[in-house]
Amino acid sequence: MRILAKDIEKNVDSEVEVAGWVHRIRELGGITFIILRDRSGVVQLVLEHAPDLSVESVIRVRGIPVRNEKAPGAVEIPVKTWECLSRASADLPFQVNGRLNRTRLDALLENRVLSLRNLQIRAIFKIQATIIESFSAYLRAQDFTEIKTSKIVSGGTEGGTNLFQVEYFGKKVYLAQSPQFYKQIMVASGLERVFEIAPAYRAEKHDTPRHLNEYVSMDVEMGFIDSEKELIELEKNLLAAVFEAVARNNAPELALWQAHVPDPDAILKSPIIPYEEARQIAQAGTSNRLFDINPEAERLICEWSVRENGSDLVFVNEFPRRHRPFYTYPLDASLTMSFDTLFRGLEISTGGRRQHDYQALLDTLPKFGLKPDDLKDYLEIFQYGCPPHGGFAVGCERLTARILGLANVKEASLFPRDRKRVTP
Amino acid sequence: MRILAKDIEKNVDSEVEVAGWVHRIRELGGITFIILRDRSGVVQLVLEHAPDLSVESVIRVRGIPVRNEKAPGAVEIPVKTWECLSRASADLPFQVNGRLNRTRLDALLENRVLSLRNLQIRAIFKIQATIIESFSAYLRAQDFTEIKTSKIVSGGTEGGTNLFQVEYFGKKVYLAQSPQFYKQIMVASGLERVFEIAPAYRAEKHDTPRHLNEYVSMDVEMGFIDSEKELIELEKNLLAAVFEAVARNNAPELALWQAHVPDPDAILKSPIIPYEEARQIAQAGTSNRLFDINPEAERLICEWSVRENGSDLVFVNEFPRRHRPFYTYPLDASLTMSFDTLFRGLEISTGGRRQHDYQALLDTLPKFGLKPDDLKDYLEIFQYGCPPHGGFAVGCERLTARILGLANVKEASLFPRDRKRVTP
Repeated sequence: MRILAKDIEKNVDSEVEVAGWVHRIRELGGITFIILRDRSGVVQLVLEHAPDLSVESVIRVRGIPVRNEKAPGAVEIPVKTWECLSRASADLPFQVNGRLNRTRLDALLENRVLSLRNLQIRAIFKIQATIIESFSAYLRAQDFTEIKTSKIVSGGTEGGTNLFQVEYFGKKVYLAQSPQFYKQIMVASGLERVFEIAPAYRAEKHDTPRHLNEYVSMDVEMGFIDSEKELIELEKNLLAAVFEAVARNNAPELALWQAHVPDPDAILKSPIIPYEEARQIAQAGTSNRLFDINPEAERLICEWSVRENGSDLVFVNEFPRRHRPFYTYPLDASLTMSFDTLFRGLEISTGGRRQHDYQALLDTLPKFGLKPDDLKDYLEIFQYGCPPHGGFAVGCERLTARILGLANVKEASLFPRDRKRVTP
Repeated sequence: MRILAKDIEKNVDSEVEVAGWVHRIRELGGITFIILRDRSGVVQLVLEHAPDLSVESVIRVRGIPVRNEKAPGAVEIPVKTWECLSRASADLPFQVNGRLNRTRLDALLENRVLSLRNLQIRAIFKIQATIIESFSAYLRAQDFTEIKTSKIVSGGTEGGTNLFQVEYFGKKVYLAQSPQFYKQIMVASGLERVFEIAPAYRAEKHDTPRHLNEYVSMDVEMGFIDSEKELIELEKNLLAAVFEAVARNNAPELALWQAHVPDPDAILKSPIIPYEEARQIAQAGTSNRLFDINPEAERLICEWSVRENGSDLVFVNEFPRRHRPFYTYPLDASLTMSFDTLFRGLEISTGGRRQHDYQALLDTLPKFGLKPDDLKDYLEIFQYGCPPHGGFAVGCERLTARILGLANVKEASLFPRDRKRVTP
């Protein structure tokens, strides 16, 4: 039975089998030292005869572990027998066992099977797995039901722009930009509280360090709210739970990036700033004229929040109607019950209360150049009894990237899709 | 503060607020009785004056609960004040508060916002949420890492058939049939054990009660195995954990369908039958000539398993090479280390060990009419050290449907996609 590197220490003096990748090979005075890497860590192997092996090959080894203070983990395995399970080409596009910070992002993305072997890069996705797990666990504990909705849709809820078209048995359909429509159905169907973690698609042509054309959207929707403030309260608690889980489960991964998650207490006290006030805060920090909250403004508002409130997280609410989709619930004639969540300089989430009144929705459509016929399925939600409700969506890759301070959100996607990249 | 129907009993004699949908209205001797439904259950409201209300409208009510043995839950709320939050059209396409077994499936699917209010239909998706949660939890406890991979791919791993085409910035790309390629990369990248729960797409034209064109695939892949038998062992334990969770969390939902999950002990003892033997078992039960394990054979093998082994689950392994994709690991010249999982008459899962040897894969390709150039990205996985590995995928909707005995797998999809259906 194979045992893992992390358990070798418990098995000193009894024969074990270990298996993994050849992380490093070193010859010293006729002895060969191999650092073997498995999913749990590394262990040093000692061979009397130089093996015919390349780094990154996969081997299986038997031997009796012994203590050696100089070995990693203070234990090593003098090898009795070994076999090569898979030979790696000697011609690697880059070295896995060093630091990859000088390797071009493109090379890392084109060779995921290698780049993910680097422990610092793997750390990104160990943390992402914790984010997804803890996000789900927190919501389930609050009585939210997980749903899985179709990503093939007949049109966009945000209007017809930025949609990828799919050839579907001779019909033109699209990839969903968000599960907006579906999660609202689920609230109105009586589940009241739902969440979904699934891919979402935006056919935006721009290629920036903030954008992905396919991303993992962590969507939340809940019924029986009065304003967006209840959603912000939920999101604060949700993110605090996520940060706490990452701190608890991923200390080694955070250390590899010299990163830390915010203190949950500070998160719970994050400020909520109305849009116009937030714009002025940002304006005070730049000589560029800010007409709305653009990426520069997001950065400046976050800097202000850290300075004034000690919080890496800040909520901007009361967005003007012109900045929000037609279904956003009005606060007054010009403002809406909506918000963005900014974290360490970047918008990671957007949300708001939705209009649940059928007649009010009908009255709103013309102002957005929309016709009731274009939204027949959507409008039906509100004809059969729909509670006041709202929700938000958190971009999983953006949250991951901002926790670790990654320069480009693509680094937080296993197989990112941009205008040019559709492989691997 | 709103409280839920299930908590009314704890609040007898103190004023409460409740909110939900009008499930039923009844007049009796000048008094109006309303059954109010929220996500937790129902509560009876008593009004002195007949309200202007239609069923399925959403209302918010205040009053002091009192005991009444004749009311559901033995408590009712004499209403002090009420308001209508959303009025339902009096013209419902079907009645929510009765049994819907005579309502056509199409009508139920076209009106999800209503059909999901029926507790029996909602039960399907409460159970599905438990399946997803417990599937993930079991695998995490076994050191599997959750991954999220792209659904936009440049080609199919199963060859070029049955793919939906996407218009992607002027390029032709496709929707992924499975994360096969990606989960193998993740194993080879050193994570060793991964799982993903995400949509998968098959552009199959046939419309049967077994098929969906978009389904939720629960994918598992693990490294360092010797044969498919270790995968079968994992899947037995995984399904036993899922069934146990459904029994624990969803007793009321199972009762609505008069359904039960299999006993976990029986699942752990499920038989493993080689393909040829399984075909002969099926052949003994029918006068139709069985050339392979078709849907009729799947049903007959399951009946045999219940009769002979008392198990609702049966694994068929050692499939002939011609029935399996090129990447399946050979057992001998004609058979493979692969398996199907049959549950209550239906294949719910398929899996196997994969070929991990680069040269062996190259030698196999011509037999499948494939060229190395078509699979360049895939073949790269095996050039840099890839352990022996394998995996399987469970169809979430099929598993849900067979637990509850649903006649059509579409019933287990919130928004099913078939050849004709792309809305809602």
